[in-house]
This record gives sequence, structure tokens and C-alpha cells, in this order.
Amino acid sequence: MNGQAYAHKPVLVTGGLGFIGSNLAVRLAELGADVTVVDSLIPELGGNRFNVAPVEEQIQVSTADLRDGEAVARLVQGREIVFAVAGNVSHVDSMTDPLRDLELNYRTQLSLLEAVRKGNPDARVVYAGSRQQYGRPQYLPVDERHPLEPVDVNGIDKAAAESATLIYHRVHGLHACSLRLTNTYGPRMQMRHGRQGFVPWFVRRAIDGQELELFGGGESLRDFNEVGDVVEAFLFCGQADSAVGEVFNLGHPEPITIRRFAEILLEITGSGYLAERPFPADRASIDVGSVYADYAKIRDRLGWEPRVGVREGLTAMVEYYRCHRRHYW
Amino acid sequence: MNGQAYAHKPVLVTGGLGFIGSNLAVRLAELGADVTVVDSLIPELGGNRFNVAPVEEQIQVSTADLRDGEAVARLVQGREIVFAVAGNVSHVDSMTDPLRDLELNYRTQLSLLEAVRKGNPDARVVYAGSRQQYGRPQYLPVDERHPLEPVDVNGIDKAAAESATLIYHRVHGLHACSLRLTNTYGPRMQMRHGRQGFVPWFVRRAIDGQELELFGGGESLRDFNEVGDVVEAFLFCGQADSAVGEVFNLGHPEPITIRRFAEILLEITGSGYLAERPFPADRASIDVGSVYADYAKIRDRLGWEPRVGVREGLTAMVEYYRCHRRHYW
Repeated sequence: MNGQAYAHKPVLVTGGLGFIGSNLAVRLAELGADVTVVDSLIPELGGNRFNVAPVEEQIQVSTADLRDGEAVARLVQGREIVFAVAGNVSHVDSMTDPLRDLELNYRTQLSLLEAVRKGNPDARVVYAGSRQQYGRPQYLPVDERHPLEPVDVNGIDKAAAESATLIYHRVHGLHACSLRLTNTYGPRMQMRHGRQGFVPWFVRRAIDGQELELFGGGESLRDFNEVGDVVEAFLFCGQADSAVGEVFNLGHPEPITIRRFAEILLEITGSGYLAERPFPADRASIDVGSVYADYAKIRDRLGWEPRVGVREGLTAMVEYYRCHRRHYW
Repeated sequence: MNGQAYAHKPVLVTGGLGFIGSNLAVRLAELGADVTVVDSLIPELGGNRFNVAPVEEQIQVSTADLRDGEAVARLVQGREIVFAVAGNVSHVDSMTDPLRDLELNYRTQLSLLEAVRKGNPDARVVYAGSRQQYGRPQYLPVDERHPLEPVDVNGIDKAAAESATLIYHRVHGLHACSLRLTNTYGPRMQMRHGRQGFVPWFVRRAIDGQELELFGGGESLRDFNEVGDVVEAFLFCGQADSAVGEVFNLGHPEPITIRRFAEILLEITGSGYLAERPFPADRASIDVGSVYADYAKIRDRLGWEPRVGVREGLTAMVEYYRCHRRHYW
């Protein structure tokens, strides 16, 4: 990936104060891009102004609500690349408040696509999709041709948003593509609740010397990507013409069980302990079992590969939160 | 199908003043059901009070907006079966105003499912899906296992709504199922514009002795179901326990080209004429080519089969509109 290509490039990052968006914004600013981030700062979703503290002098921050079509129309003006990272990532919340998930994950993306189509049709749009779109895998590793059969409303909304993104490419010629993210971890995740997957909650509780609840044995396999690797994939997609109109899985060459992930984490923190628990009903009903992705397509076409292993990534993550704990707890 | 099972049965039909909903409501009333219909009467969608004129003394009509969650919650109370037929069926409109399509096709269904889950979880829910969910067929005839890869926002929203319906079955235990309708025709279709498929527009123009525009040769195959047959399928699904949790294609044993359909229509009306036209850009970009469905599943499991052929069905349809023209033109 040619980092210099981003120097002075006007880019927009939606959800840019959240976990993945802020890591992307920080990296873009380091590469000299002209970065605007927009983030609704909806409580619980993960937006945190501290996330962009290292670059706050270099970037523009808007706290417009992405559900506000006119604000979005203004924000996309003049941006050469729009990284559409905003969204709700809680599967559990999507089942207790499905209409909110629809708004945050599907409606906002459709509204963004409309804004780009009408006001800035030459912009590149890179959408942050999710392996949740696949649902319970019919085979492993899951490749991009695997049917999309989501098991929760979050998966439906992410699939609908991605589908709209690709249709805007085919029908309206938008330069759009999608990355399907697996389990991403690293600095700048929200740490206030456990409803956005187990990773941040495990990290917080391990650092605090508390119990990590392992549901159903923790034997499901996952492929964990450190957020720096995920940011790199976004940078590839923002630049490569061969990415346009395409969907790419991310993934990792070494899937591990959730239990193993937790054990490595505990070794790193030296505090906290595992506790076996049966699956709570609300999680069991939408659990997908083992899932990991085939990322050969993005490796072969764009040259992306994950560089960071779980032990290295978690070590840096724990260090980050020990240092900046007061901004996240 | 045991029609007597519907005597005194409290049922709700959403979109019940529209094309399919009103035909269903009329039939249910004839079978002695306790019928409530709700229809937002949003201009252009197809709701028409005249559609239920034959049974207006026997049914309750609400014109609440289905986007109003509280109204929906009241309407589902005490209903044993909810036929969820409301929606926008215009593919073209879904591309010019995608956010409206999201509201009408996906949000309303999610809102209805929430209302049933919270207020009447034992009700049967029968959703009106669409073959548009499949997109451009990868093989023919399309069976229920065919991937859902919609080519327009309408297809995305119908697929999302159906997917939510099935997830409410799996996760919340709702007694829900879905019918994927193909090209339905017959009495009570709106006749004011040509954006809900070519069928009503062709019928109107043929009756009026005008030109029928055949785009791109009209060689695409379609399977046409007369609305009475479609109503029968809804009645099966409202009753059979084996329908719960399932998706069923409708279809017809004799797919014909759009051209042939038009020719038969012109033979029946004795007026109107064909005109060859290239595909307009907005339609070509979302055209799906030939598509017809494999309906073996509903035939084998529920015993449904279409009884009406195109010539017979169109003859009755033309007669209906000649008689009631002033209520539709």
C-alpha cells in the first residue's frame, strides 16, 4: 500500500470517533490526509473524543447525526474518499431494539449513498461490512460466495447496507466496495459494556482482575484481526481501482478458540480468571458457532495480509488501556 | 384448503385495500372470517376503498399508517392471523426514493413483528415476499435455496423484511412464514401508473386501445399467477402448522414470455397494439431477465397449485376493469 497516496487527500470517516473509525482517522492523519470525521456520539455505540486525541489538531471533527440527510450531504462534499465505518455492532442490542439497529446500520448507509450519488458521485466509498452477514457458516473457512443468511437483525441490516452499496455501484456507477470484518480488537474500543462482543469486556475484566465468563465452553473458533491490520485494509480499498465493485473478507491465518484467546489475554495481564457459564438464552439463540474467513481474495488482488498475531496485538492493547484507562472505564 | 377453518377467525390484513390484500380480505370475508384490514392509503401504492366494496359491511377498515408503531400494536391485538401484505411494489420507485422504500417495505414489517412479539406472540404471521429477492437468476426455475442477491433497493428491503420474519420465528418463536410471490395479476390492481410492473399498465392501455411498449423484445419469461390462486396460497399458510418457519415460492407450470402475455391480452381486448422499444436506462439497470420459480415445495407440503391460466385470468381481469373502470382509471 502506497501511504504517500493519502497525502493531502480529502477523506471522510463516518463513525470516526468510534473504535475502527478513529484508528483509521489517526492513521490517515499520520499519512498527511485532509481528514474529516463525523460521529453521532450516540451513547453506548463507542464514540469517544479521546480516541482522536493524538491528531486532534490535524483533523476536523463533526458530531452531526448521520441520520440527518442534509448534514451528511454537506459532509461528503469535496471528499475524494468516504470510509463508511459508522454503525451499531451489538448483536444483542439489535434484537432488543431492532428498529434502532435498522436506523443506525442500514438507513444511515442508504442515506450516505444517496448523498454521494447526488452530491459527489466520483467519490470512492469503502463500506465496513461484517462476517455477521453470513450467519451460521455452512462451511469453513467462509469465502465471499458463502450465502448471506444472518441470524440476527444486526446481520440483516449490515447485509442490506452492503447490498445497497454494491447496487449503487452497479446501477449508479458509484466507486464503492465493501470489507467484511471479522473479530477486530485493539486500542480505542469502547470498554463500558459487554454488548459489543466479548473482546473489550474480557480485556477490561482481565485488567481489573475480575472473572471472564466463558459461555458454552468457549470452543468456537474465531479469526482475530488487530485493528492496525484492519486499517491497512481500508487504506488499500480507498486506493486500488481493482477494489471497486468488490467485496473482500478479512481474516487471519491462525483461527483460535475464544477460550485460547482468553487464556492468552490472562497470561498477558497476569490478572483475572476464567469462569465457565452456560450460554444465556438471548445469546445462544443468535450464536453462530465457529466462524473464520477465507481472505485469499484480498490477499491475491490487493496484497493485504494481517501482520499481527493475537499475543502481540493483545499485549499492545492491554498496555494502551492500562495507560489510558480513565478515558475508557 | 379447509375454508371452514376461517369462519369467525379474527384476522388482520395489512395493505388490505391494495391489490393482493383486498382480494385476500374479500375472500376471507366470504369464508366468514372476522376481518380487519389496515391500509395507509399512501398515494400511488395501490390502496383503493372500492376494492373492498363487496364486503364493506362485513369487515373493519383502519387507515392507520403502518409506520405508526402504536397503531400497529393496537391492530394486532386479538388477531389469530396477521397477513402482512402491505408494501411498495415498485422497483423503479425504490431506486429514485430508496429511503421511502426502506420505510414502506422493511421498517413497517419489523415494526409489525415487534408488535406481534410484544402484544400477541401466539398469532400466525404470513409475510408476502417477492421473487425480486432473488435478483437475476443463477439458474431456472428458481427454488427456495437460490441465493438472495437483489438488484434493486426494493429487493433488498423485501429480503430484509422476510429475513427478519424468519429470525423472529427462530429467536422469538413467532409462528411466521413467507410466500415469495412472482408476477401476480387480476382484479383490484392499481391502474394509475406503470411503475408497479408492466401488467396493470398493459391491461389499461389495451382496454383503451393504446400502445403497449414492449422493452427489449419482451422475450423474458415470467410465471404469472392469477390473484385468486395467490389468495389461496395465503389461506393455506394461515392454517397449516407445517408452514411455520418456512419460505415458499409461488409459480406457474407454464412460464410465458412478456410478449406472449401481451399478445394474449390484445386478443382478449381486441384493442391496443404492441410497440417495440429499447429498454429505458432506469429499467435496464435493474432488469432481471427471465425468471420463473419452482413451486414444488408448497405443492408437496401444503397441496397448493395454481388453477388459473393466463387466458382465463386475463379474460376475467379485463371484464372486471371494463365494468369498474371509473374506480381505477
